[in-house]
Amino acid sequence: MIKKRIFFDPEIKKEGLSKIKKAFERMQYERESGLAGYYDLPVNQSETISAIEDFISTNEYLSHNLIKDLVVIGIGGSSLGTRAIDTLLMFSHNRNIVNIHFLENLDPLYLINSIKKIDLSKAFIVVISKSGTTIETISITKYIFSLLQDPIKGLDLKNKIAVITDRDSPLDRLSKERDWKVFYIPTNVGGRFSVLSPVGLLPLAILGYDIKALLNGAAAMREEFMQNGVELLLFKKAYYYYKHRKKINMNILFSYSSMFEAFNKWYIQLWGESLGKKRKENERVGLTPVGLIGSVDQHSFLQLIVEGPKDKSVTFLKLKNFELPITVPHLSLPYLETTDFVNGRRFQTIINSQCDSTMEAVIEAGVPVDLIEINELNEESAGYLIYYFELLTSAVGAMLQINTYDQPGVEKGKILLKNRLSK
Amino acid sequence: MIKKRIFFDPEIKKEGLSKIKKAFERMQYERESGLAGYYDLPVNQSETISAIEDFISTNEYLSHNLIKDLVVIGIGGSSLGTRAIDTLLMFSHNRNIVNIHFLENLDPLYLINSIKKIDLSKAFIVVISKSGTTIETISITKYIFSLLQDPIKGLDLKNKIAVITDRDSPLDRLSKERDWKVFYIPTNVGGRFSVLSPVGLLPLAILGYDIKALLNGAAAMREEFMQNGVELLLFKKAYYYYKHRKKINMNILFSYSSMFEAFNKWYIQLWGESLGKKRKENERVGLTPVGLIGSVDQHSFLQLIVEGPKDKSVTFLKLKNFELPITVPHLSLPYLETTDFVNGRRFQTIINSQCDSTMEAVIEAGVPVDLIEINELNEESAGYLIYYFELLTSAVGAMLQINTYDQPGVEKGKILLKNRLSK
Repeated sequence: MIKKRIFFDPEIKKEGLSKIKKAFERMQYERESGLAGYYDLPVNQSETISAIEDFISTNEYLSHNLIKDLVVIGIGGSSLGTRAIDTLLMFSHNRNIVNIHFLENLDPLYLINSIKKIDLSKAFIVVISKSGTTIETISITKYIFSLLQDPIKGLDLKNKIAVITDRDSPLDRLSKERDWKVFYIPTNVGGRFSVLSPVGLLPLAILGYDIKALLNGAAAMREEFMQNGVELLLFKKAYYYYKHRKKINMNILFSYSSMFEAFNKWYIQLWGESLGKKRKENERVGLTPVGLIGSVDQHSFLQLIVEGPKDKSVTFLKLKNFELPITVPHLSLPYLETTDFVNGRRFQTIINSQCDSTMEAVIEAGVPVDLIEINELNEESAGYLIYYFELLTSAVGAMLQINTYDQPGVEKGKILLKNRLSK
Repeated sequence: MIKKRIFFDPEIKKEGLSKIKKAFERMQYERESGLAGYYDLPVNQSETISAIEDFISTNEYLSHNLIKDLVVIGIGGSSLGTRAIDTLLMFSHNRNIVNIHFLENLDPLYLINSIKKIDLSKAFIVVISKSGTTIETISITKYIFSLLQDPIKGLDLKNKIAVITDRDSPLDRLSKERDWKVFYIPTNVGGRFSVLSPVGLLPLAILGYDIKALLNGAAAMREEFMQNGVELLLFKKAYYYYKHRKKINMNILFSYSSMFEAFNKWYIQLWGESLGKKRKENERVGLTPVGLIGSVDQHSFLQLIVEGPKDKSVTFLKLKNFELPITVPHLSLPYLETTDFVNGRRFQTIINSQCDSTMEAVIEAGVPVDLIEINELNEESAGYLIYYFELLTSAVGAMLQINTYDQPGVEKGKILLKNRLSK
């Protein structure tokens, strides 16, 4: 289904083997102790799946296709994963015609113009906040409530709203009081690791996706991890990233399909927020994620990779089958005969050859490169990819001996904001 | 109109002053010698403007509002600038209702689904390629031609297509033979510096924007540059980036409005492709650009900035007036009273306070920060910003003593592609 190769010497000697072994043990500990709940999401959610299916099949709006717009109010980990998967699979046969809208930023122009595109009378709203008090999410929810509040009919959201939050959060309590449907995020699953929890599963199910297949794909990668352990190629990659982190402080994900645009952003949050940490004695560690789209960014960022400082690694992500056999027409235009070498070629062949050629040039420039090749885009491969990058993040985090799952650095700004606006 | 501040000591001593002076002189030389044509675009295009206005006012489709879709076929510098400005100003009063579509990537799924949204019978096509042989652009153009080719009526594109390319390029020759309208990119203006040439001006004019005001905004920044020279704050910033390039190898543009999404991408190409170079003795230099959107990326990337390695500088971009006085409703929800501190506040006030608070936290973390504050988004401020970042790029490039305007590193992959597909 998904092939992986690395094109550099990961330099695993005795020390590397020991580091990898310790990281694997640490990850097993994180999983078994429940320190990080994401590890078991692919295999422990049959009840969640049933609850989501029950909810959708019994909800008077969702079950009768009375919904035109799905409005997801949530920011960061509450929206990035759903958006990543929906953008990856937007052309799949399972996807229904419900429009999805993500309301996240407080930018008023953008917000108002996003809301203009929503038919609120035919909208289903999902409010997602792990803490239940995320300021963007609650402010936008209040604003949407004010639009929904009909002076005659009042505000009746019953059956048109669901909430996803931590058990006993303020938002959970409000929801119970109002009799809104609530799904819980397991306490030990952080926002950026939550796409395979109700955070992603509920909206994706409403859009028609096969969420069981999504989890099955993730479970396949989990099984590889459990079975092959330290033999997994991802540990070799993680070790190289760990070992060279001071010189190679950036990791590029170069995805050869426009459908990976949102997936790249999901990866950026996962990698950046998980690995950018102070560790003991206040040493600052972290690797910077960069997301690129091929071939577009060959015309933007490639020059820097090929000729700039050797401070980057590159992972190429290639989609083998686009399932659309369109070709460049056999059209020879006068003066443009030099471009005829692609005539009659499938677009798929050309973009994949662009990936191969760029990869070859980047390898030749001495940059550490690896390749992930996906046979086709579907729920299984999406779930597999998600879980692969989560494991890779955990592996590097374990080697760095940091807490991969918190984000203490963002609190300061929140306090400053509250002080500033409470005046 | 646009205020700039830096919050770090640029450490300009005698050596710095001399470096800045030399960079300024180099830039004057680049401008005067014609080595880099972008410097004078804001002031030398009255003929181009007239030609564009004439063309639009006399074209039978464009002058009578018979166009529903504007299709821009172009990649990299041929589309990023137009997209940046159109996304910045999409809610402006000047913007007409023509839909713009950018066809750039050969990804067949994405391409076909983009084309599905176009009413080809009411479309105007602009093909943009500086060399005239860009493989993505020509392949997509051929594909579009095959869709337009009516078996009965044949292919008559006259008055429904314009081409923007270098004089005497293969595409120019074809266009002349077919009697298509051609606008030229000045030979000494590279793709990523070309948005203020016909590359951006023609499509933006078709969308209704005031392109004279866009150039006037850029001319205002140019005037500052010519008048204040080495006194410009941007030289201090450029010197700091130059001096600390080995430790601080990333420059973040953190823009506090969703409308800057495409602008960030334009900046990424400009910065990455211009500064990532081999210089004498094969020394590899370059600074990596990162584009973030506030407040969204506070929930994604901020942790890495605050606690990760001190290998980044951050430029905050803040929009003072969003011109939409919407507020968070005075709605106190049970259990969520801790979020009431934003009740009654304008969304604009909150997002700008988020910018201020984050900036304060990032400065406190010891990261070099500067701020660009824009009073309001319009053609003038967009033009000013574009020119500001172009100058900043040239200044750092001059200090690095590289050729800021070429991109030799991307050729290898093109040759490999041709070899691969010509078999």
